[in-house]
Amino acid sequence: MKKIEHIGIAVKKLSVSIPLFEKLLNTPCYKTEAVESEQVNTAFFKKGESKIELVEAYAPGSVINKFLEKKGEGIHHMAFEVDNIEEEMKRLLNEGFTLITEKPKEGADNKMVCFLHPKDTNGVLIELCMEKK
Amino acid sequence: MKKIEHIGIAVKKLSVSIPLFEKLLNTPCYKTEAVESEQVNTAFFKKGESKIELVEAYAPGSVINKFLEKKGEGIHHMAFEVDNIEEEMKRLLNEGFTLITEKPKEGADNKMVCFLHPKDTNGVLIELCMEKK
Repeated sequence: MKKIEHIGIAVKKLSVSIPLFEKLLNTPCYKTEAVESEQVNTAFFKKGESKIELVEAYAPGSVINKFLEKKGEGIHHMAFEVDNIEEEMKRLLNEGFTLITEKPKEGADNKMVCFLHPKDTNGVLIELCMEKK
Repeated sequence: MKKIEHIGIAVKKLSVSIPLFEKLLNTPCYKTEAVESEQVNTAFFKKGESKIELVEAYAPGSVINKFLEKKGEGIHHMAFEVDNIEEEMKRLLNEGFTLITEKPKEGADNKMVCFLHPKDTNGVLIELCMEKK
């Protein structure tokens, strides 16, 4: 894990939260993108070497809707950039962590991603992400 | 706001969570520090230009205990580095955000800090922090 790639924040409506975070972070949203595998729309802001990713569900069954029902809006996950996602997944499995998927899957922003189960990480949902080549 | 200075994670016991995060992040905890103003003990890890800060309450009245009772262990706040904290506080007040304290106060890691009320920021507790000169 090289750096914090992004912090993911679950929101109800991007149309409300994008202008809010533009004021808060004092920087424009530079990209929006739908991620079909998660049934979410995302919006990105840059701060230093990391990003802030707002995440809105576009279908009732999305994991983001379940999160909003249970916990309300707020920080949803923390993502770390890795050079080799399969090697890092292997290292974490050997350390006793639980991976949510056996293989990396397509994420937003041209990334292959894998999530760790928060039961082993003090309730923090951790995402590994690797730039697609 | 220049970069993510750190992500704060509320934990029950540093003695359990420090070795857990050393395995997770694959990097040693480089510092622990008590912060009297918040009645917490903290532990720091470095990843790229940002830090991960584990936070444990050392007194029952600490805000971290209230957070743990309500939400359980997990991400507690997101901190941004600023050059001039009083100017940034003024900018955010003018944008309609609510500051939890009127003036900056002493934080961990040689910083002056101020928190924004999460009611205005989609449930995200935001900290501004400036290196003490």
